[in-house]
Amino acid sequence: MKIFIAGMDGYLGWTLAQYLTARGHEVAGADAFHRRRWVAEMGGHSATPVAEMPDRLRAFEARWGRQPLFRVGDLTDWDFVRRLFEDFRPEAIVHLGECPSAPYSMIDVHHATWVQTNNIVGTFNILFAMRDLAPESHLVKLGTMGEYGTPDVDIPEGFFEIEYRGRKDRLPFPRQAGSWYHWSKVHDSNNIMFACKIWGLRSTDIMQGVVYGTRIDEMDGEPLLTRLDFDQSFGTAINRFCCQAVVGEPLTPFGKGHQRRGFIPLRDSMQCLTLALENPPEAGEYRVFNQFEEAYDVTELAQKVRKVAGELGLEAEIHNLENPRLELEEHYYEPDHQHLLDLGYEPTHDMEAELRIMLADLERYRGRIEAVKEVLIPDIRWDGTRRKSKYL
Amino acid sequence: MKIFIAGMDGYLGWTLAQYLTARGHEVAGADAFHRRRWVAEMGGHSATPVAEMPDRLRAFEARWGRQPLFRVGDLTDWDFVRRLFEDFRPEAIVHLGECPSAPYSMIDVHHATWVQTNNIVGTFNILFAMRDLAPESHLVKLGTMGEYGTPDVDIPEGFFEIEYRGRKDRLPFPRQAGSWYHWSKVHDSNNIMFACKIWGLRSTDIMQGVVYGTRIDEMDGEPLLTRLDFDQSFGTAINRFCCQAVVGEPLTPFGKGHQRRGFIPLRDSMQCLTLALENPPEAGEYRVFNQFEEAYDVTELAQKVRKVAGELGLEAEIHNLENPRLELEEHYYEPDHQHLLDLGYEPTHDMEAELRIMLADLERYRGRIEAVKEVLIPDIRWDGTRRKSKYL
Repeated sequence: MKIFIAGMDGYLGWTLAQYLTARGHEVAGADAFHRRRWVAEMGGHSATPVAEMPDRLRAFEARWGRQPLFRVGDLTDWDFVRRLFEDFRPEAIVHLGECPSAPYSMIDVHHATWVQTNNIVGTFNILFAMRDLAPESHLVKLGTMGEYGTPDVDIPEGFFEIEYRGRKDRLPFPRQAGSWYHWSKVHDSNNIMFACKIWGLRSTDIMQGVVYGTRIDEMDGEPLLTRLDFDQSFGTAINRFCCQAVVGEPLTPFGKGHQRRGFIPLRDSMQCLTLALENPPEAGEYRVFNQFEEAYDVTELAQKVRKVAGELGLEAEIHNLENPRLELEEHYYEPDHQHLLDLGYEPTHDMEAELRIMLADLERYRGRIEAVKEVLIPDIRWDGTRRKSKYL
Repeated sequence: MKIFIAGMDGYLGWTLAQYLTARGHEVAGADAFHRRRWVAEMGGHSATPVAEMPDRLRAFEARWGRQPLFRVGDLTDWDFVRRLFEDFRPEAIVHLGECPSAPYSMIDVHHATWVQTNNIVGTFNILFAMRDLAPESHLVKLGTMGEYGTPDVDIPEGFFEIEYRGRKDRLPFPRQAGSWYHWSKVHDSNNIMFACKIWGLRSTDIMQGVVYGTRIDEMDGEPLLTRLDFDQSFGTAINRFCCQAVVGEPLTPFGKGHQRRGFIPLRDSMQCLTLALENPPEAGEYRVFNQFEEAYDVTELAQKVRKVAGELGLEAEIHNLENPRLELEEHYYEPDHQHLLDLGYEPTHDMEAELRIMLADLERYRGRIEAVKEVLIPDIRWDGTRRKSKYL
């Protein structure tokens, strides 16, 4: 299948390009390298060394026998997106080309505006390019479980049947996101749902949980490694915990640490995205997958990281931090995640094995983490101020 | 009360400035004159002659003894909004400064993107200015009943209590808007709800029905008249029907003509906005008002216009047009509208009296309508093409 990956230079994008190529798909990609700039703005860098794209592409060719078509450009530029669709004519699009950070979006009015407009406009350009140039193609769009927030009822996959005052309907499940970034994903979901309805496009909107992991088996050699961020804005919870364990810093759940979230290893994320791609929806269908393995409490995860780190001789403490976010720290959380299982998803249940691989990878780059380890403690607060969180 | 009206040059904004001044409030306003440009882009103009702002302000002063503070500028410009808040320090903001047109947003990728980013960014700037410079102020934001779409259940005012799989919660009512413009209002609603939650701001989000009418009693003399558009993008249904009756063109419900919508006369819209302003919510409260008088079928309204026009000697036919939109033409529609009645709203139930005033006003400007009457027939279609709708 001809698959266009928007955001191919990122954590998921670079991994997916390899995973799909290994399965025989023809991949094209685009990136504007915003992620590298954002992480630098946060004072951080990837724990794994990240080669420049020309070097990445040469290593890719050495490993897979060919280079993907790759273009440098911005999804918010309509002419760039249009030309790309004219030249590549994708059968599927995986849209990973958005700013994925809640804290980054909460910095100030300029960041909030930038994140929302960047994400909405890029998605708009892809939708219009699909309508005009690839109307049969399938958009696999990365959303986030964070679109739902933490309602006091079960979370279905996108839609629910309700009875209200004696009448019934199937309606979109209400979203209650927790940052300007998370709301940008809700805005996207709404726009995509509408485009499918009026133009007969097809899309899978992936409500993904928090991803962790340094690699997939196909990654062979350092230039093929994907990035792994650990700063407050672009590092996900377990990835940050592992980096903290490696440099001897406490693992830091926020607040009470009983926030429950869905989590998924990088390799399973690739498996799930591929299942969505290889089993597209009908024309006009907008479907939602909740993509995670299991829901855990953040403290449980910190304990797992501490245990595995201990087996590798790394002593890690858990020390909760003042929560810079405004969020419920104890709450009900029962999201469905059946759609991917129905397509054949086989979850990696051995989280400890995954953590062993991660910690071994990260130990090789201890010096890189150590060099900027101050970025592990957050200072971007939901009230608009900036102040480093203190240990509780 | 010190009230800032964003979009003071528009249909509602210019009317509200006078209505609030007559009630003793201190008004300031801003406008970038986008509405004048959009209507010109559609090939139309206001049926009523619209003076330039300096002339409007002079007439305002002659009538009310003072001019409102008025600034020309764009709400998407953060520094403009910030300086305005620094200089005026509003106690309330009425945000009418958005692009209000479904067809305009459906023209192409550029218009879709422009409408959504313009509306979202302007609202963001107001929210951040409130947080930083007027945290006790009250935002009255114009949304639209179109945010809800036409679900097969009753429509509450913003939120509903539901039971789902044996658990209960109060959740935002799901939105199913019908154009990029209507979705921009949903995105705004979501952003405002979140700002109230995290920053303790207060807001009334007005889901307004379709407004009709040429005047309020306070408008005394031509330069004080508000604009009245009748082109396919900026004319609302009854306003267009009245203009059609005046120039002897058929009144044109779209498709089957059984779309039900909430409608409200201009004078009642002013009454309701003022009730919201004079009864602000608590800090941190985000409340939603469904602002309309009664829900009618579009064909019923065309029949009312025909009847009143006939009494004035204007023979009007009703001739349905191909529907350029994608929407249900027969559907369930039972929206609540209790919140404003609880605050003391007294609806104008004599629609025919209102239509008599409108038609008399518009007859004076028959030549202006006649001059560009081709804009009454739509050509912007929801599938992205442009083709004039034919009579059915």
